[in-house]
Amino acid sequence: MKILNLFELSAQNRAKLAALGDVEVIDGDKLGGNAKNIDVIYGWGKPAESVLAQSNKLKFVQSNSAGVDYLPLAEFKAKQISLANVSGIHAEPISEMVLAYILSFARGIEASHAARREHNWIGDQIRNQIYTLTNRTVVIFGTGHIGQGIAEKLKAFGVTTIGVSRHGRPAAHFDRVVTDKSGTVEAAKADFVVNIMPLTAETRHFFNPAFFDQMENQPVFINVGRGPSVDTKALIDALDTHQLAGAALDVFENEPLEATSPLWEMDNVIITPHISGGFREYGQAAFNIFYKNLTTFIQTGTIAINQVNLSAGY
Amino acid sequence: MKILNLFELSAQNRAKLAALGDVEVIDGDKLGGNAKNIDVIYGWGKPAESVLAQSNKLKFVQSNSAGVDYLPLAEFKAKQISLANVSGIHAEPISEMVLAYILSFARGIEASHAARREHNWIGDQIRNQIYTLTNRTVVIFGTGHIGQGIAEKLKAFGVTTIGVSRHGRPAAHFDRVVTDKSGTVEAAKADFVVNIMPLTAETRHFFNPAFFDQMENQPVFINVGRGPSVDTKALIDALDTHQLAGAALDVFENEPLEATSPLWEMDNVIITPHISGGFREYGQAAFNIFYKNLTTFIQTGTIAINQVNLSAGY
Repeated sequence: MKILNLFELSAQNRAKLAALGDVEVIDGDKLGGNAKNIDVIYGWGKPAESVLAQSNKLKFVQSNSAGVDYLPLAEFKAKQISLANVSGIHAEPISEMVLAYILSFARGIEASHAARREHNWIGDQIRNQIYTLTNRTVVIFGTGHIGQGIAEKLKAFGVTTIGVSRHGRPAAHFDRVVTDKSGTVEAAKADFVVNIMPLTAETRHFFNPAFFDQMENQPVFINVGRGPSVDTKALIDALDTHQLAGAALDVFENEPLEATSPLWEMDNVIITPHISGGFREYGQAAFNIFYKNLTTFIQTGTIAINQVNLSAGY
Repeated sequence: MKILNLFELSAQNRAKLAALGDVEVIDGDKLGGNAKNIDVIYGWGKPAESVLAQSNKLKFVQSNSAGVDYLPLAEFKAKQISLANVSGIHAEPISEMVLAYILSFARGIEASHAARREHNWIGDQIRNQIYTLTNRTVVIFGTGHIGQGIAEKLKAFGVTTIGVSRHGRPAAHFDRVVTDKSGTVEAAKADFVVNIMPLTAETRHFFNPAFFDQMENQPVFINVGRGPSVDTKALIDALDTHQLAGAALDVFENEPLEATSPLWEMDNVIITPHISGGFREYGQAAFNIFYKNLTTFIQTGTIAINQVNLSAGY
């Protein structure tokens, strides 16, 4: 069995794969004429495309991300290729990132950063303006395990957590969950609005002028989901017109965020370079999922965990 | 009974004081010739000094801060003036501030801010460098209610919490508490070091070259206690020589921080303008303590809660 590796593999993990017996790992830069013989792909990238075009043996792709919107899902479905994501390992890092954003706004750190450029001490101006999270309301679009992880952390700070999902079913750590339609009504009254929805046809430009126009309470908008769920021009307008008090953005319609984007220079906007799910042990955590799936795949031809529904897209 | 008000009083709270009967509230700017007739001071400032010099009736001062190092404690003691602080209302806002600082460093927000000046997208450089708080170690100097509040929040993130106090007695939410001497040894191995000690003769310049020289693990240093507990020059040297990975500072030896301070321009340093204890409802929370003490003082001549030990200084 030939595995095309397009992510990262420690020496220890390469040894673990070798110990499985009939397994050969080929790194992306050494694919050469092997594209037609690949059975499994770990990660994704240019070399994967030639495998997809040439190999009839490809039956399992293990992505190294949670979102899989960048993959040719229809082609996977047509060719009966099983796809797994690494959903589950992002809850802790993304939850912590969202708490960092929210606390930075609540506690005046973002305001202090802006004043700092002028060496400006604004204690007396903001000391009575800043606030604690107690009894604040955060509306989270997406109630999967990451959304639940965010809600769990927020509950430790006395926050009211409202989830929004297609089905509106109750989920752990949410005070209540509503459906998409009611979500905007809830967001309108919230202190913070968080997007962690997957990108699908339905969520593309979900956060558009119509959405921002309904905000009543000047929330801070946080995107740790996918960039194209947001209409960037509408977001910038909503910030300019103070429909939003601020934004914290980890993902963007175009990544890297173009150097000419006005977002870079806007006050009350935190920009991070698509890192919210990252952490030092990510490679090992992703490998653990891949290894579990690979061993099952070798034995049974199916995968054990994290299989993506290729029609739903997540 | 005449009360000199040097803090803030809402109309509602003024009415509550008036309802106590023989109570007259005099605001600082209307003190005039009344200095010698003042019985009680709420807050502190210039007019209080003339009261202290002239009034034999002054028997109770309710400060509007937790730390009281800026007050003439020896004179209070000699004149048998009872002093109360508002300790207890800062735990939530300061805990949230410390979590914001720590998460900003852990999750790469501080690094992203530094890169942002150049519109620089550093995702690939830092995504695998950043980390979650799980199993990190935070050493907190000061195990009173604020220290405990910080530790409580950190436990929600899976952090190992080590407290340092003079007595070394166990305290809530700390995995363990050690005495001053062992504190430096613990700090040397920590990921974050937090100061929330009161300022006393013993804590002045506690964080000095000898302290920073012992750091082995490049911790981030956080000061939400008092500025003079830190030797600023030693702190800057420790940052320059990478004995520290960074710092988050809310208090300074001189406040406002002078515009010429090199700290303003240093990367990996978060500066906030002495706001960590602030929040919108602070005035009401402080008044609640004052009101409780005042009613007891009127009835019995003593105060009910938050009395400062004038010899210890906190």
